[in-house]
Order: sequence, then C-alpha cells, then structure tokens
Amino acid sequence: MRILVIGSGGVGDAVARIAARRDFFELMVVADVDVTRAQRTVDAARVNDVGKDRFVAAAVDASDAGSVESLVREHGATHVLNAVDPRFVMSIFTGVLAAGAHYLDMAMSLSRPHPQQPYEQVGVRLGDEQFATTASWQDAGLLALVGIGVEPGLSDVFARYAADHLFSQIEELGVRDGANLVVRGDDGEPVFAPSFSIWTTIEECLNPPVIWSAARAASGGGLEDGWYTVPPFHEPEVFDFPEPVGPVECVHVEHEEVLLMPRWVDAQKVTFKYGLGEEFIGVLRTLHQLGLDSTAPVSVRGVEVSPRDVVAAVLPDPATLGPRMTGSTCAGLLVTGTGKDGSPREVYLHHLVDNAWSMAEYGAQCVVWQTAVNPVVALELLAAGTWSGTGVLGPEAFDAVPFLELLAAPTPGGYGSPWGLQERVPAVSAGVATA
Amino acid sequence: MRILVIGSGGVGDAVARIAARRDFFELMVVADVDVTRAQRTVDAARVNDVGKDRFVAAAVDASDAGSVESLVREHGATHVLNAVDPRFVMSIFTGVLAAGAHYLDMAMSLSRPHPQQPYEQVGVRLGDEQFATTASWQDAGLLALVGIGVEPGLSDVFARYAADHLFSQIEELGVRDGANLVVRGDDGEPVFAPSFSIWTTIEECLNPPVIWSAARAASGGGLEDGWYTVPPFHEPEVFDFPEPVGPVECVHVEHEEVLLMPRWVDAQKVTFKYGLGEEFIGVLRTLHQLGLDSTAPVSVRGVEVSPRDVVAAVLPDPATLGPRMTGSTCAGLLVTGTGKDGSPREVYLHHLVDNAWSMAEYGAQCVVWQTAVNPVVALELLAAGTWSGTGVLGPEAFDAVPFLELLAAPTPGGYGSPWGLQERVPAVSAGVATA
Repeated sequence: MRILVIGSGGVGDAVARIAARRDFFELMVVADVDVTRAQRTVDAARVNDVGKDRFVAAAVDASDAGSVESLVREHGATHVLNAVDPRFVMSIFTGVLAAGAHYLDMAMSLSRPHPQQPYEQVGVRLGDEQFATTASWQDAGLLALVGIGVEPGLSDVFARYAADHLFSQIEELGVRDGANLVVRGDDGEPVFAPSFSIWTTIEECLNPPVIWSAARAASGGGLEDGWYTVPPFHEPEVFDFPEPVGPVECVHVEHEEVLLMPRWVDAQKVTFKYGLGEEFIGVLRTLHQLGLDSTAPVSVRGVEVSPRDVVAAVLPDPATLGPRMTGSTCAGLLVTGTGKDGSPREVYLHHLVDNAWSMAEYGAQCVVWQTAVNPVVALELLAAGTWSGTGVLGPEAFDAVPFLELLAAPTPGGYGSPWGLQERVPAVSAGVATA
Repeated sequence: MRILVIGSGGVGDAVARIAARRDFFELMVVADVDVTRAQRTVDAARVNDVGKDRFVAAAVDASDAGSVESLVREHGATHVLNAVDPRFVMSIFTGVLAAGAHYLDMAMSLSRPHPQQPYEQVGVRLGDEQFATTASWQDAGLLALVGIGVEPGLSDVFARYAADHLFSQIEELGVRDGANLVVRGDDGEPVFAPSFSIWTTIEECLNPPVIWSAARAASGGGLEDGWYTVPPFHEPEVFDFPEPVGPVECVHVEHEEVLLMPRWVDAQKVTFKYGLGEEFIGVLRTLHQLGLDSTAPVSVRGVEVSPRDVVAAVLPDPATLGPRMTGSTCAGLLVTGTGKDGSPREVYLHHLVDNAWSMAEYGAQCVVWQTAVNPVVALELLAAGTWSGTGVLGPEAFDAVPFLELLAAPTPGGYGSPWGLQERVPAVSAGVATA
C-alpha cells in the first residue's frame, strides 16, 4: 500500500505519527500547500518509523483536481487520505478518481441550505455530491471510504456494531460528543481556543442541523424523505458523558453520521448532538451575527478574503494546543431500542482520549489524535483485505468487529486505544409504562 | 476659504451635504481613496449647493503625507478637514503642515498602551504625537484644530462654556454618550449594525480607558501626571439620558476629551463614559477574546489583512444605515461642581439628534450627521475670523458662545440644531451632608 495524505494540519500530522509505528504500508507521502509544514510532519514521523524511509513530503494545491491527480500518479499512490478541511473534498475526490486510486476522507462534501426553508427542509446534503458519483467508482473498481475519522467514522462503526451485535431493533442512533478540555494561556488563565478546525466547527454548528426519521422516510416514500432540518443550537440537553468528562450541554448540529447511518443501518431516528458549552455557543452566535462565519470573500483594502478564513487565522492552530491543554474528549453513540433479548436497552458506545496520554504517547493533542487514529486503522484493514469494497461507502458498510478489535488491542499488535460500552437505564416509554 | 475634506465615508459625506447650504467658503474638494465614492458625495452635495460649482472630487492616499501635500497644493486649499479613521491622522497632519494649510480633525493620533501596566499607567496618549508638533504649527502661523467633531468637539465646547458661564469651580467634567437607536433588517427584526465606524469603536472601547485627576496631577507635579488608565468596560453605570433616549448602561472608554479638557479647563476630574449597552459589550468582548480586534496583519491564504479591517468589511457601512434606523442619539457633558452662586450644581449639557430628522433634512443618519455638523460650524467661525489661533489647539481653547449660538440658531442664519441644558439635582457630598 502506497498512501498519499493530503494536508498536514493537526489531523494529517497525527496520521503520520500514528502510522509510523505500523508496518502495513510501504510509502506515505505527506502533501500540503505549505511544503515546509509537510516536511515538519515527515520529520516528526520518521523518528518512530518502523519501516525504512517511508515518509516523503510534497507540495499540493488541494483546490486543484489536476494537482492532486498528478501527485497521485507521480508517487504511484494506491490510497489517498484527505485530511484538509471539507471545502476541498470535491477537488481531491475528483483528482483521486481520475488517477485511479482509492480514497478516504473524514468529512464529506459540503451542504447548501434549502433556499426557502433552511430550518425545515434539506437542500444539498452533506455528501450528496460524492454519492452522486458512486457508479463511477464502482465502474473503476475503486473504493471511496467516506467519513472515516472519529465522528464521522468510529461513531458509524459503533452504529454497525450495535445493529449487528447489541440490538434487535433500534429506536435512535444518537451521536453525542463532549469534552472537558481547558486550554490555558501563558498566564495560566483559560483562553478561548477551539480544539478542532474552527472552519469546520463553524460549518457544522451554524449550518441547519439535520435529523433523519424513518417515519418521515416511510410517509414520503423513500430514504431521502427522512432527512429534515431544524434551527441552529436546537434542543439543548445536558448529556452525562462518562467520567472524567461528566455533564455537558449538547445541541443538534449538522454532521455526516446523520447522512451516512440511515443508508446502511436500520433505525427509527438518527441524530447528532455536540457538547459545545455555553461560551462556545455565544462566540458562534456572535460570529454569525456579524457575518464573520461567512465563506464568501469580502474586499478588504484591495485584497479578497473569506471572513471565516480570517477567524481561523487569528485563532491558535488546534494542532499546537496540546501542551497547554488539560482534560479528555469523548466521542460516542447513544443507542436506544430493543436488545437481542427483546427488552428495552440503552447503551452509550464511546471512545475517551485523555490529552495528557495522547501528548505523551504521540505528541498530538487528543481531539486531532482521536480523529487521526481511525483512518489509519481503516487503511490497515484495507491493506490486509479484511475490509474491501467498491463505490462510495460509509464506515457502517463494513464489519465493525475487526475495526473495534484492532483499535483496542494492546500495542504493538493493535492501537492500544480501548473503546467502552456503558449500559444505561432505558427511559421507560409511555407505551411500556401503561402496558 | 478653500476646504479639502479627506475621506467621504459617513462623516465626510455628511460634511459636504451640510456645508453645501452655507456660503462661507469658495471651494470644497472631497477626496477619497475611492474616487467614485468621493464623486457620489460631490453629486449629493451639488443638489443643494448655495454657491456655484464649489464641489470637486479627487483621489488621495491618506496614508501618504506626500499625496496629501500634493493635493493641498494642487487645489490651493487653505483648510483641510480630516474625515478618515484615526490611523491616518499623522500622515494627513504631516502632509497639511508641509503644504502650509490649516488643519482640522475629529479624532486624534492613536495611543499605545503602557507596555507593563496597561490598565494603570498611560503609555503614548491620544494626541501625543500631534501635540509634540505644536511649535512647528505656531512657527508656521498655522492652526491645527484637533478633535472638532461631536465627541470630541461639541463636548469640549460644552466644557469651556460650563467653566466660563455656569460654574465657579468644577468637580468633574464627565462626557456621557448614549442612544436608543435600532437598525432593522429586511424582515423588520433588529440587527447588529454599529452606527459609527467599527474600526474607531473597537479602538476606543478596547484600549485602556483613560481618566484625568487633578489630585494625581498635583501630587505628581504636573498636568501629565494626572492621566491614568483602568480596565476596559470599567465602572458600568446606568446614566439617565434626556428623553427620548432614557437610561443606558455606560462604561469608561478611551476618548480624546479626557486628553483635551485638562489642558484648557480647570476641573478636579475628567472622564468619558459611553452607553454601549449589554449586547455591544458582549460583541466587543468576543472580538477581543478571539483577537479579531487586532490591527496587526495576519496571513490568510497568501494575503495579508488586518482582522479589524475584516470586521469592518463584513458589517454594513454605517453611512448606509439611516433608512433602516429609528431613534435618537445624545452627546453631552455632565458637569458637577459649584455654581456661580456658590451652591452645588450639576448640569448635563447635551445635543440630541433624531434620525428621522437628519434623514429627512440631510439624507444622513443621525450619528454621522451629529459628528459632521461641528467641524462645519468651526470652519464657518474660522472663515469669519470669530475663531482664530495658531498651534495645536482643542475646541476648548476657543470661546464657546459663538459656536453654540451658530449651531442652534434657526436656518438659514444658523444650523438649526439646538443644544440643551438639563439642570440636575446635585448628589450631596458627605462633606456637605455633615456640615
């Protein structure tokens, strides 16, 4: 396997650091618009490289499908992992298909709100542009494995696992993401510093949140009728995450899982709620109020810039926050429904990463590490032939067990990052209570 | 009198519209970095021009003293009014002196916080760079009349008036600025849209607020020892503005009056408090928290921009808000001390402008109109020889009465914009209460 990673920001950098300790591939090209940044990643990865000279830096323009295609061909890459922000999904996706390689990403092609009813109807959905090309990938005998970070990614693997092994009937697949991370400034006081790409965070939090309902799908006549939208920051609820995270206020946001899970897993409802916390919601509301969330270029003293890019530029690079951060991040899936024994069941499948651990082990802050480990596990399963397929497929299209085993198995055999199953007391439905 | 106005944003545009109805000058050149914007102002002013072809548009680079000097010479301007944001004060100021013309502005050269104790000690003060050149202006026989908008400007005229005609001894000169303005979007809902330059508003609200104390000056040994700073948003108080504005929460901000008034008017204390309101304070806090208030350029996908310029670019141009705005703005000076009769006195000298009136009369929204009318009044007094002087002088260096009379006198003789004196019940000091 010859891997091309496009983007050496936080996640791309962590991908290389994690992959360096695995021997399933022969080459990893790390490409970035800024080749010095790619070289920094390559230098860090080489320190722990269990192979021989497997890491190479390169320059790429991710917005140009031709640049991507040339780079794939130049290095004979068999698999391309897209690790840049989602506005570049389609140019990379197109370039990889043209070059005849397999493709993986951690965020899908962007949505566009419904022009008249943005908070009720879906417009162009996350991933729509990618799914539209399924036949081309199938015809080429190529796989596009989309949404294989942590969320989407591990959360989708959890959904498949729940359906196959834990539930006979699923009421809701509810992704719930929360953290108790604190970043401190030089003076030791907490500072505002998002732990993940602010570009992506703004996109997913301010776009109309999407929900899928089987009842709507059935009444409408098909899968596509099941998706609908609600206003940003809808239905705040305090979700009690496993220790040490604890209770965090979560709100609906737009996220790929809601678009992926219903395609492969039977459930009555699919949701995503993100534990943003009050302060972050306030900041996002202000950015939106002022129009600073916008991606449309504005003219500023003779140059054109996108306000959202400026917000990203003034905030610290999430990849650099690790040493100033404390706490843990929790990604997981709350599944409610009927267990294999026919009784009501509620489980929270989850993956906790402590920042002190990921910094000590990999020199990567926990949120980017947690995102980066999953595509590496997937690549290893693809290299081994344990996972295989063609077309545009989500993680839930594959058997969850080998993935979860490889992720959790102690090093050096596995990735040494256990996941958890928290059995919760099911809320008694009105129907059961009166039975 | 041949006037060059530099800048045709909200205030520069209103200056031309107001001046068009007055016959005290022979030429007004309106210059802007964007000559089409200057031409738009000239076209609007010509409609009501009581003279003949007195308005001319020109292009200028306000950041280049040489460009300013050439333009002054080209048009034989005798007086230059600086109507751009204060980062360009020094280049314009220098260019005008070199060209041998008189100078007026509405905001003074920028401050720089004290490097070690920004919220206790002053660093470089507002106007310091200008006052440092006093001898050069005097030697050239030229006047630099600084801070002659509404605040600073009319507020400083009020201070001189209070000292000359209302008080035998002044305890505090406290500028208090508030409004009940609401801007509505296309859907009729209120939107966030600052009524004045956001660049300037950020500068004055997030810089360390400055206060002047006679006791500190005396204990330190001189005028300059009287200035000190406090943290942003210090000492919030609800000030009851005259109807229709009513009560508004005010906080200390950095403002020119505090630097000007102690130079010419005796008082124990000089302060400036601005009625920002809770929402605006929240927005400013968030901009500061994220670093979006910064003027230092950041690199954004290959171009360099100042985040504060981007904030200004995404917000609506304050000059365009008039038709969507309702309410009134109030600028004024609260004076406390001992009246001419020896008893405690407290008055609020103020100037209220209703947006519906300024839009109907001048096609200018009330805040920019209120700023723009004062330099035009001052120019008329200079043209008549009623006001004269050389060196760098604030408005309180001149007799207040002719200014206040000309401002308030009905059109066409005056500007038809009355000011008010609100007699308030003085707070009884502890000393008086126990006497």
